[in-house]
Amino acid sequence: MSSTIKVLLAEDQSMVREALAALLGLEDDIEVVAQVARGDEVLAAAREHGVDVALLDIEMPGCTGIEAAARVRRELPGVKLVVLTTFGRPGYLRSAMEAGADAFLVKDAPAAQLADAVRKVLSGERVIDPTLAAAALAEGANPLTDREREVLRAAADGSTNAELARTLHLSQGTVRNYLSTAIQKLTARNRTEAAHIAQKKGWL
Amino acid sequence: MSSTIKVLLAEDQSMVREALAALLGLEDDIEVVAQVARGDEVLAAAREHGVDVALLDIEMPGCTGIEAAARVRRELPGVKLVVLTTFGRPGYLRSAMEAGADAFLVKDAPAAQLADAVRKVLSGERVIDPTLAAAALAEGANPLTDREREVLRAAADGSTNAELARTLHLSQGTVRNYLSTAIQKLTARNRTEAAHIAQKKGWL
Repeated sequence: MSSTIKVLLAEDQSMVREALAALLGLEDDIEVVAQVARGDEVLAAAREHGVDVALLDIEMPGCTGIEAAARVRRELPGVKLVVLTTFGRPGYLRSAMEAGADAFLVKDAPAAQLADAVRKVLSGERVIDPTLAAAALAEGANPLTDREREVLRAAADGSTNAELARTLHLSQGTVRNYLSTAIQKLTARNRTEAAHIAQKKGWL
Repeated sequence: MSSTIKVLLAEDQSMVREALAALLGLEDDIEVVAQVARGDEVLAAAREHGVDVALLDIEMPGCTGIEAAARVRRELPGVKLVVLTTFGRPGYLRSAMEAGADAFLVKDAPAAQLADAVRKVLSGERVIDPTLAAAALAEGANPLTDREREVLRAAADGSTNAELARTLHLSQGTVRNYLSTAIQKLTARNRTEAAHIAQKKGWL
């Protein structure tokens, strides 16, 4: 009966990923058995290497760490999931927990918390920042629909309604409607402010 | 005569910083002798620990890694400077080189390049990505003045001209002028697009 914890590390920035692996490699009871740089490679790698814990960055190509978490939770329910992110946005925490994450860590946290979290989730604990949890609960769920988020994201580069309509295969009237509903829901005064608010809350 | 290279690591995300330290700690000839989380602590720490090489993240509180690089270059000309960033933006590379950096690395690069760069700059080489260098040269210098950058940054949250004027202690007419000049220089159609273009190029 081995006591080594097998960890998968998913993070798109090579240098950060390999550095985190070096950090975890200093722990006697933890072994990084797989590293991937894309969200859509997480499930296959977790399955192939029979990992105990998957550490997932949120921003990744292929699919986000949150989507990857949901897939692993569905297909490999025994694997524990730690979501690791640069941005401690309340909306991210909420989405991660809804996707079945066991822990949510920000990269601002002391490095020792990483190995700690790996051990804790394995023993059935949940690890989240209490302040962030309170903020996520106070703010409620993301009020935006998928379509409203899509239009708001696309509008962030200053595209006109006509361009948005073309890019998103929608009519200009529909684009206008989505934007004005999103602006209303976020009590913003314009599309730029709406996109800014949604991004800060982790709702985009 | 010791052959150990003394390195200072400046990065605001604790977990990433300590992970990078763990990574460099694997190298026999490199020792991380100081870690700081703020740009304005770099110079004092570099002086106190007599470092050979300073590794500087760009986005830091206090002052940016580029400003910190310029200070070290001025005060401690013998210290080699490696700028390390999440965003390989041509404007960042140009500013870093103008500030006197010896190397410019993106966190997307393989981890082995970090120790390599430390050794190379110490032997007098410069280390930069050739593609990024070509892009930086092709794009030319940042056309925006400090004031235009300041107004553009402040406008990114959807603030109105009246709010910008209040925050920046300027008249509304002056705000309007700065924004319209910036929009013209970047051949953008509106302030949102101008801010977006400037950010992508590393000009904000």
